[in-house]
Amino acid sequence: MIKDLSAFYSKNALNMKRSEIRELLKVTRRPDMISFAGGLPSPDTFPVKDLEDIACQILRQKGAMALQYGPTEGEWALREEIAKWISREKPGIKPENILVTSGSQQGLDIISKVFLDPKDTVIVELPTYIGGLQAFTAYRAKMVGVLQDEQGMRMDLLEKTLTRLAKRNKKQKFIYVVPDFQNPSGVTMSLERRKRLLELAYEYELPVVEDSPYRDLRFAGESVPAIFSLDKENQVIVLGTFSKLLCPGLRLAWIMAPAEWMDRMVVAKQSMDLCSPTFTQLIAAEYMKRGLLPKQIESIRRLYARKRQVMLEALQKYMPKGVAWTKPEGGLFLWVKLPKRMSTDDLFPKAIENGVVYVKGSAFHCNGKGQNTMRINFSYPSEQQIEEGIKRLAKMIKENM
Amino acid sequence: MIKDLSAFYSKNALNMKRSEIRELLKVTRRPDMISFAGGLPSPDTFPVKDLEDIACQILRQKGAMALQYGPTEGEWALREEIAKWISREKPGIKPENILVTSGSQQGLDIISKVFLDPKDTVIVELPTYIGGLQAFTAYRAKMVGVLQDEQGMRMDLLEKTLTRLAKRNKKQKFIYVVPDFQNPSGVTMSLERRKRLLELAYEYELPVVEDSPYRDLRFAGESVPAIFSLDKENQVIVLGTFSKLLCPGLRLAWIMAPAEWMDRMVVAKQSMDLCSPTFTQLIAAEYMKRGLLPKQIESIRRLYARKRQVMLEALQKYMPKGVAWTKPEGGLFLWVKLPKRMSTDDLFPKAIENGVVYVKGSAFHCNGKGQNTMRINFSYPSEQQIEEGIKRLAKMIKENM
Repeated sequence: MIKDLSAFYSKNALNMKRSEIRELLKVTRRPDMISFAGGLPSPDTFPVKDLEDIACQILRQKGAMALQYGPTEGEWALREEIAKWISREKPGIKPENILVTSGSQQGLDIISKVFLDPKDTVIVELPTYIGGLQAFTAYRAKMVGVLQDEQGMRMDLLEKTLTRLAKRNKKQKFIYVVPDFQNPSGVTMSLERRKRLLELAYEYELPVVEDSPYRDLRFAGESVPAIFSLDKENQVIVLGTFSKLLCPGLRLAWIMAPAEWMDRMVVAKQSMDLCSPTFTQLIAAEYMKRGLLPKQIESIRRLYARKRQVMLEALQKYMPKGVAWTKPEGGLFLWVKLPKRMSTDDLFPKAIENGVVYVKGSAFHCNGKGQNTMRINFSYPSEQQIEEGIKRLAKMIKENM
Repeated sequence: MIKDLSAFYSKNALNMKRSEIRELLKVTRRPDMISFAGGLPSPDTFPVKDLEDIACQILRQKGAMALQYGPTEGEWALREEIAKWISREKPGIKPENILVTSGSQQGLDIISKVFLDPKDTVIVELPTYIGGLQAFTAYRAKMVGVLQDEQGMRMDLLEKTLTRLAKRNKKQKFIYVVPDFQNPSGVTMSLERRKRLLELAYEYELPVVEDSPYRDLRFAGESVPAIFSLDKENQVIVLGTFSKLLCPGLRLAWIMAPAEWMDRMVVAKQSMDLCSPTFTQLIAAEYMKRGLLPKQIESIRRLYARKRQVMLEALQKYMPKGVAWTKPEGGLFLWVKLPKRMSTDDLFPKAIENGVVYVKGSAFHCNGKGQNTMRINFSYPSEQQIEEGIKRLAKMIKENM
């Protein structure tokens, strides 16, 4: 019998953190619980009937192919469809620029594996996506946070940070941003900031990782060009996904990268899972080929726009003075700020008592701050749950003010 | 524009190797080419009709669940079925001991991530599975090889190796073996060796990783107990997969481990891909629940037994004196040894010219040896191709003797 397991664990394994969100899924199964904690798309949006039809067709017509191993890069038919899809935003994207991944989390893992040695620096937003933090942490990277405001990452602070890091002669590897309806804040980076971000990336010779799962889910305001579409120096790596546009259960996403970055990523994926599921790849390719995606996205937008509206109205109606929140123009999340002296960490058990859960803002901060903030999700709960949940949350906050 | 990409790559990325086998897939698409190089199961064995029926049922009855995110550990229904399946070999395996993975390659990646720091030692067979080498190499582990003979890994040499390493005070992390119809050699480890392996693992306090993709594909001889079923100290981690029993295109496999090892593996998988595809997991669970797997395995066994027979007879008929090969009692591969002074690396271009490909034995050797060996696969090519391919191979070998 081995007595001391920890003697066998790698330094990376000892450094890994459980995702607070995935752990929360356990609490949220209580039937009376209203959960604003998850980041799940609404199952009402899943095009079950179309997918059933396509899945059967694929197995009937291409069973031997669909059930076999496929190329590490992904099925050509799917890479073609994705390239075509992205070319709406920037012409000339080729299938060769697309690496199909098993969800965007694998995209983050591949990028981490290819770029990060222990102690390397990644520049992230404050707050930032928890799955990004988790992936980078698993490689023991050092994260340096740059504050956001309602225009996205503050470029004055990014410049200061880059200057400071350059002086210290540390090894920076990339800047990680979620520019559209950010998870967790719901904030969209302004055009001016995007341009400035690229200027700084060129000046400091740093790749930008543009994590873009929600970009197509805009239901208000004007679209801002994607960072990669503004890039003239081939320095942007994009993460896209089917999880929020079609459904997560196929586990399909992609990395779009300049050709010269692809090779190492493909080799990394070889060692990670050989290839993503051929069967689900062919389903997604056929779904796109039939031209069903735009209509599908339209219906998701309509549903989420309504849910967001219900949430904004409930917040307006129930929240006490001193509480503020973002008004995202798309995506799945709102960001709530309590008065500075309050702590969403401390309030958390009381929220559970009151039958409502959120994710503590501190979980999204690489510097442990954000104690007075929380992320709440409006895509998954029903409109009734949103109204009732916000009411419970507001009551609990009022009582603890 | 970033000038020096390599300045951004992690040490791990710079150390990674492309799989020779996956690269070979490109050559093997030539229509006249007979490939013994791949490790693909025969698509003739895929139960397309059953899977179509099940896929449609799943989407009709559980669409919302099948298309949503699932738990990192895997769908409970599938973990139950896998645990029940494995309990045939050792009673008392629980769903809690099962972590569903996105193919066995991900199992290898998880184990590597959880256990391996750069320069840590993994003890492997000579030769050993290339995907294992690739996974361990991606974490810059040091591999120490122990020669096989027709009984499997030589325990006298393993003992010597362990003693030597213990003296040097190096950090050994685990012993990696493929005990049944090994990839690449086709050799099965004898019962005596399995027992001795466990004794040594206990004595030197090392976990054993039992990679077992082919175990159920025995078509001759007597079954030897699985190493984990002989283990009394909870020191064996098992990798199992649906890729060779059902089909690879669902990308489903599992890690079975003692409860105390599970936690870090689950956290590692969270950071890697959140969860394996819910849709394909539910398909596999239902397939097992309907009791279809034993019959399916029976039909694979029959097909591969016949193909192996054709290959053995062709080898007997065409190969010149001085060439030897293994006679595996199951699995997908044969191992061919040419006279010592010949090199399968050097012969490789000539083989391609002659319209036949194999995998060079050196690719399976962590010490770069095995130049006179090759792996040939009998599961994928047709019986006619096997006969014709061996004829071409034998002719080419004869000409170069």
